[in-house]
Amino acid sequence: MDEKDISQAVIGRLPRYFRYLGELKYEGVERISSQELSEVMKVTASQIRQDFNNFGGFGQQGYGYNVEYLYQEIGKILGLDKKHNLIIIGAGNLGQALANYMNFERRGFIMKGLFDSNPELHGKQVRDIIVQPMDHIMEFVKENEIDIAVLTIPKTSAVEVAEHLVQNGIRAIWNFAHVDLNVPEGIQVENVHLSDSLMKLSYNINRYDTEHKK
Amino acid sequence: MDEKDISQAVIGRLPRYFRYLGELKYEGVERISSQELSEVMKVTASQIRQDFNNFGGFGQQGYGYNVEYLYQEIGKILGLDKKHNLIIIGAGNLGQALANYMNFERRGFIMKGLFDSNPELHGKQVRDIIVQPMDHIMEFVKENEIDIAVLTIPKTSAVEVAEHLVQNGIRAIWNFAHVDLNVPEGIQVENVHLSDSLMKLSYNINRYDTEHKK
Repeated sequence: MDEKDISQAVIGRLPRYFRYLGELKYEGVERISSQELSEVMKVTASQIRQDFNNFGGFGQQGYGYNVEYLYQEIGKILGLDKKHNLIIIGAGNLGQALANYMNFERRGFIMKGLFDSNPELHGKQVRDIIVQPMDHIMEFVKENEIDIAVLTIPKTSAVEVAEHLVQNGIRAIWNFAHVDLNVPEGIQVENVHLSDSLMKLSYNINRYDTEHKK
Repeated sequence: MDEKDISQAVIGRLPRYFRYLGELKYEGVERISSQELSEVMKVTASQIRQDFNNFGGFGQQGYGYNVEYLYQEIGKILGLDKKHNLIIIGAGNLGQALANYMNFERRGFIMKGLFDSNPELHGKQVRDIIVQPMDHIMEFVKENEIDIAVLTIPKTSAVEVAEHLVQNGIRAIWNFAHVDLNVPEGIQVENVHLSDSLMKLSYNINRYDTEHKK
């Protein structure tokens, strides 16, 4: 299986397939055709077949896909059969929201540490993790085999923190800071720019109004 | 200006342009060429010119773009010159994180109300807003001219709540629930599926490992 040329657009759709297949599995569905899956997911059947062909097609279409098998295979492609240790940097509301989100653990993302620069938060417990000061981060990363750092800190400090993390062996950053990080090749970054998302919503409201002369 | 055929991919890039132009403006930069902007933003100059041509081009390229003008114009296209009243449904950590994020107000998104089904949260104050029970939502939406509902509730209740909101005149939903909402045409939805984003990160780590035979 050569995944070299698979576009980020296809990758971006995989988690959604995984999510729907998880639900079908939960509902006890054993087999599903690309046509049925297309109706549930509101994408074309041809899009589904094209996307799946990037990974070898996942079995005979005439008989439909085996839901359990497809769910497992897409999970493997997404790397969800492996465990990743992560830390959250920034223990404000957003950091705590992510720390409390148990579903990530089910997917193999294990929260190991929580850090904040605010002394008032040090010692605070979120689930079984105690908030530590920022100057403990780098030692902690090395000692606990941390793969992923989640950044929920202001953009002013995010760039510098990311640089240190990379120097100390972090492999991936899930970035909620409102800044684009500049990292070396081989370091994976996934941005969640919440204000960008809200602006896109605003654009679509505005455009609808303009077209409908409100 | 005919914006009918502008793809969501272009729209998705506008907030990023807006963000960078805001920073350039803040740094006192008055004019910038597409080449310079390209270097700062790490996209090709030709991509920038193509994107801007969707909106008439924003002025002469030979002299570069006027940063202030470009910032204002993109802001207008994004509808950021208008005010939108919003409510947040779900006052857990994520809802509170969003409620506390003042930058949204600067962009014209005014938080008017905060709702939760958990009685323990009722009466709790986040900034100057008091958490109310869910059964106050629909009256509140009508009385306060609410455009946007932010959903930070579990997927089990999100679908039903979204339906009621639409029936009661909401125009847009910023959806953090892990479910795709099914809304009538003309209702704008922007999804932030956090677990999808984390899975994409996981895929990219896994793929890098596979290619580098780790």
